This record gives sequence, C-alpha cells and structure tokens, in this order.
Amino acid sequence: MSDSLPPDSVGIVSPQTYHFDIPLNLACGQTLESYDLVVETYGELNANASNAVLVCHALSGNHHAAGYHAPDDRKPGWWDSCIGPGKPIDTNRFFVVSLNNLGGCHGSTGPNSIDPDTNKPFGPDFPVITVSDWVQSQARLADRLGIECWSAVVGGSLGGMQAFQWSLDFPERVRHAVVIASTPRLSAQNIAFNEVARQAITSDQEFYKGRYYDFNTVPHRGLMLARMVGHITYLSDASMGEKFGRELRDQAYKFGYDVEFQVESYLRYQGERFSESFDANTYLLMTRALDYFDPAYNFGDDLAKALAPAKCEFLVISFSTDWRFTPARSEEMVKAMVAARKKVSYAEIDAPWGHDAFLIPTPRYIDIFTAYMDRAAREVGV
Amino acid sequence: MSDSLPPDSVGIVSPQTYHFDIPLNLACGQTLESYDLVVETYGELNANASNAVLVCHALSGNHHAAGYHAPDDRKPGWWDSCIGPGKPIDTNRFFVVSLNNLGGCHGSTGPNSIDPDTNKPFGPDFPVITVSDWVQSQARLADRLGIECWSAVVGGSLGGMQAFQWSLDFPERVRHAVVIASTPRLSAQNIAFNEVARQAITSDQEFYKGRYYDFNTVPHRGLMLARMVGHITYLSDASMGEKFGRELRDQAYKFGYDVEFQVESYLRYQGERFSESFDANTYLLMTRALDYFDPAYNFGDDLAKALAPAKCEFLVISFSTDWRFTPARSEEMVKAMVAARKKVSYAEIDAPWGHDAFLIPTPRYIDIFTAYMDRAAREVGV
Repeated sequence: MSDSLPPDSVGIVSPQTYHFDIPLNLACGQTLESYDLVVETYGELNANASNAVLVCHALSGNHHAAGYHAPDDRKPGWWDSCIGPGKPIDTNRFFVVSLNNLGGCHGSTGPNSIDPDTNKPFGPDFPVITVSDWVQSQARLADRLGIECWSAVVGGSLGGMQAFQWSLDFPERVRHAVVIASTPRLSAQNIAFNEVARQAITSDQEFYKGRYYDFNTVPHRGLMLARMVGHITYLSDASMGEKFGRELRDQAYKFGYDVEFQVESYLRYQGERFSESFDANTYLLMTRALDYFDPAYNFGDDLAKALAPAKCEFLVISFSTDWRFTPARSEEMVKAMVAARKKVSYAEIDAPWGHDAFLIPTPRYIDIFTAYMDRAAREVGV
Repeated sequence: MSDSLPPDSVGIVSPQTYHFDIPLNLACGQTLESYDLVVETYGELNANASNAVLVCHALSGNHHAAGYHAPDDRKPGWWDSCIGPGKPIDTNRFFVVSLNNLGGCHGSTGPNSIDPDTNKPFGPDFPVITVSDWVQSQARLADRLGIECWSAVVGGSLGGMQAFQWSLDFPERVRHAVVIASTPRLSAQNIAFNEVARQAITSDQEFYKGRYYDFNTVPHRGLMLARMVGHITYLSDASMGEKFGRELRDQAYKFGYDVEFQVESYLRYQGERFSESFDANTYLLMTRALDYFDPAYNFGDDLAKALAPAKCEFLVISFSTDWRFTPARSEEMVKAMVAARKKVSYAEIDAPWGHDAFLIPTPRYIDIFTAYMDRAAREVGV
C-alpha cells in the first residue's frame, strides 16, 4: 500500500476474473452457456468463511468499489466512503466481495463481450438479465470462493434490490441484507425516466439496433442524454440549487442556446464523460433490470407474502431528499417485513443530496450503518 | 354556436391575425422589424374597454384557449375548463384575449416563419425571446384592440410568468395579475430538465443546426424525447402511478426493450404526436424564455424590490403535488409581494395531478379562481 493513500483505504487493489461454464438459466428463458465475472475483494476471508460481505452495485457501478488501482488514481472505488479499515464495512473484520454484474461493461460478460457462437460482440443478442439472475450468478461466485453463507449482502439503489432478492432466493445463505436507497419496485415515473433514457439511446443514429460495435462507433449522443436525465434524478432540487443555483458560466446572458448556466455545463460534461466509458447496451440492460424488479409480482402484489422464505435480518436505510426512491418506498419494504415477522431495522437519514446520498458519508448514516455491521461482525466472531 | 357543443362553451371560434410593423426591440439586443400575432377573443369588449382579460399560454400552448374551431373538433382549446360562460374567466362578463406568443409555431411570427430578408424560414436566426419581450408585444396588441388597462392578466406556468411581468412592466395597465402554478425563477433542476430537452433536439441528426426546414425534415426523435422528459415533469409520481402503475401492455413480461409497460406506450405516443405538431426551434425558444425569466435579477435577487412598481392585485395559486414549480416557489412570490406591501391572495390547492393541475378543474381551484375573477368583474362593473 502506497504511503500517499489515505490510512483508512483498502489500498491498491486488483480485479480478478472468474470463468463459469455451467450454463446459467435466465428468467427471460434464455441460457448463458458460460460467462466471466470480474471481481475485487478486500480484507481476508476467515477460517470458517463466515465473515464475507457481498457488495452489489447500482446502474452504472462496477466491481471497483473501494481502494485504488494505481497509486496515482485520482479517485478511489465508488463506495470507498463505506468500505475500508474502520469504515461501516470494516475490512479489518470482513472479507468484502465486489463484482461487476453479468451484463455489465467493465469486464464481466455483457453485450460488449465476444459471443463465442459468432466471434462478434453479443450486442442486442445478449439476453435481458434480471435481479434474480444476478443473484444466481453471485451464488455461483460464492461457491467458487468457498462462501456458504454471507455475513451480509449490501447494496444501494439497484444494489439494494439484489440484497433484497438474496434474502428470498437463498434464505440460508444470507445473515443480513442491507437495503439502502432502494424500492420494492419501480413506480410508473421511475419506469418513465428509464424509458426516456432507452429511447434516447435507441433513437441515436449511431445505435444501429445495438450493433454499433460492428460499425466501429457508439451512440454517444443518446448515452449522453440518458446519463443527463439519470443524473438529474440522482440529485435533489435542493442539492442542485446549492451546487449551481442559477450561476452563469460567463458574466452576463448571451441569449442563445449554448451553455449559459453552470448546471448546463456540468450536465453536458457528466453526460459526455459517461458516454465515453459506458456501454449503451449495458445501459439498456441495467434499466430493464430495474423495471422488472418486483418480488411481489408472483404473490398477488403482496410483498409480505413474497418475504415469507426470508430468514435474514434486514437493515433498510432511506434518505430524506431522495425523490427517485423516496423514504415512502423504503417504508413499504419495512412494513412488509414487519408484517412478515422479519427482523428489521430502519432509518431515514436527513441528507440534502437526493438519491446519491447513499454514496456520501453523512455522519448519522455512517453511524447507523457501522453499528449494524459491527453487530453482524460480532455475530460471526470477527 | 352548434347545438352539439356544451352549453358552457364559448362555441365556435376563429383566430385572427394582427400585423405589427413598428420595430420591436428585444431584450437580447436584436430588433424584430415586423411581426404577426395570431389571436382569439371570447366574449364582448364593453363600452369603456374595462372588461378585458389577457390569457397567456405556457411552453407548448397557443392562442386556442377555449371553444372549438369546428363543430366536429374532438377537443376544445387548452384552457376551456376555465374560460367560458359561468366559468372562472366568465365570457358573459369578460372580453378574453388569447394569443400565440411571438416565437411560437401556431401562426404568430416565429422560427418557422419566413424571414422577409431571406425569403426562407428564420430558423436559428430567429432571436431569443424573453417574457418581457412577450409583454411588450402583448401591450401593442392591447393598443390595437383599444384596451388601455386589462382587468386581469392570467396564466399558468410560463403564462403565470407573463402575468407577473405585466405587473412590473406596465403597472398602470393591469388591475389583477393571476399567477398560477408558476415560479419567480427556475431552479437549477428546472434548467437542467430544459437543457436535456434542448440537447435532445439539437443532437438529433435531422436538426441541421436549426435549418431543418431547408432539408425538408424535422428533428422528430429529438422533439419526441424533449416532450417525453417534459411530460414526466408535468405529472406527479402519484398521478402516473394512479393512471398506469406497472400495468403491462401485454399479459406477461416479454423481456426486451420494446414496450412492456403501459406508461412507456403512453409516453411514446405523447412524444410522437407532439413531434408532429410542434416546431423544434420554438421548443428551444420557449425553454430559454423559462430559463431567463428572473425579475429579481436586476435587483440583487430581491424580488420584493423588483415588485416595487407593481400596482395591481395578485392572485397566486399553487398545487400540492406540483414538483416542477412547487408550492414553496409560489410562496416565495407571495412573501415578496407581502414584503413589498402589495395586495395578494394565495391558495395552495390539494390536487394529485402535479404541474398539469392548473389545466384541470378541481372544485376548490375553480371556486377560488371564480370568486377572485368575480370580484375583478364587479370592480369594472360587469
């Protein structure tokens, strides 16, 4: 570990790729014959493999959740605020597993991977993946790593949905599910925003019905628009106001359609940067995984009934200004958990940052998360 | 008036075009040498021209605010719920003037009009128009119609901004300003959504830097996306949930990127219909008029100071679930009006329909609006 890295960092980390060749049957009816998962781990697995924590990522996340890939990296992993020595997911006690989900674009098999049947990228032929499919693939990863039962499965947003789904699909293999800034299912408005993003991508002339790889191009503008819309929904009106207000980029109005306000410049920049690093087909896939998530669907919309098999304890956390997945949506989960007589702790955190608050170490959030994980650690003797 | 039309309709109406050839100096520094305004009127102007009400439209509105253009029209004008015999803006008492704003695409001079200098559509050469410019052009229309002082200037959303601006720019010419579902200025989030819409339009390959008329095309996909985003912000999460929930278009999941949920189908339809009837350059212009509106800008952000010249009475109305321009934004206006010692009435209406609630005749909304306009009518003896 480099001396220049913060002392509470997991330090320099390297991803590792695991290949799986037992066919995976997917919810959509298709089968993936084989696939790779790219994984990072932090901390040490203890002798009886009881201290493992699975971290699940959200829409645009990846396996690089904590630490640095190189000493001169400008930024650490996406959840470095919560993973590391002395942090809520304390790597002095836990063995943390973080993977890029199936269908992703950061090393795990996804639409931009080579389809062995055609020797070309899958593109639109890559199957639609659901949260349940991810959980299946993560269970195989657990098998490979020798982890029979997770001390905790943890995630924010779409990651929280995976934690929730674990409790239903593998009740014997999860002690704690930590579901942060999430929802039991998307609202019509949530789906609508996803649909705008998808339409932006698929209507880009460079999309070529998802086969843009073959044309050596990417639907840059569509992906940029999708990210811009998404980004607005991750922030709160208040935090955007605080950060940008009506600040102009130049001294006075220019009366035109180029950038006038700083917030426009920021959004364009975010959108452009994202469109250079993220795969458009993966974006479509991730938004659909969000749309389809609905554990109560096969239980007459009764979430408590869906929760019947769950055996773990739950920690549910929401954020006051999150208008994408409001505290009310977390409370739906909590009510269903209570109705199903599950053990559940719930906290709504006052934080101005909207949905993105789950990435930001607000003291009360960190305290509650830390206390809960401390209990989980002590349970397994670490 | 056709027998088949509702008895509280203004009946069959016809727009009229007024030509103006005294140059109009615009806020952006440019000058419009001449222009047309297309106008509808409902009711009769009284002998001393004291019973006139100006209705101002919002982003996608036009001059056709009430009644029908033909007996077999499926829908009346956009604010027919509030304009007509016995309605809040009672055409048995008031003479109502409704115009398509300058820069519009429904008959008034705008980007899709022929530029007399080039004999081609203005396109991107059409100047940026502000709310103040509209008020100037509306004042000239008032002159033409022989209206020295409006009994009321009334509008929702961007229309409310025009009512507000009238009170500042022509304090002697307005008795009442009715500002509904509006805001004293856009927030960073509001601007951000507008910017997404603009980027969607300008990044459409059919946009041709605004000269799409010359290429005999329109940026159909961009305009569709812009409308889809806009539409989401006009509705509330609750009303979308009520209307669509997670209803599927077919019986079961199809696991793909075509329409799965009814809300997707609805949004695509709305977007497509809009993109066939609205001009993309006008959309850009209207969003910028929203962005630039900021009457406190030249008064050190002190709205009360900006209000000093106003002489009219104000009615301000907001809607509980409007997250585009929340009740808090209306309350900012009201506070400033109180601080500036203006006469103001304020009501927040409980309504589930988000921003669009200003178009929907909720009983309490209609009652308050009617009572206020009744007083305005009696003041001028009608």
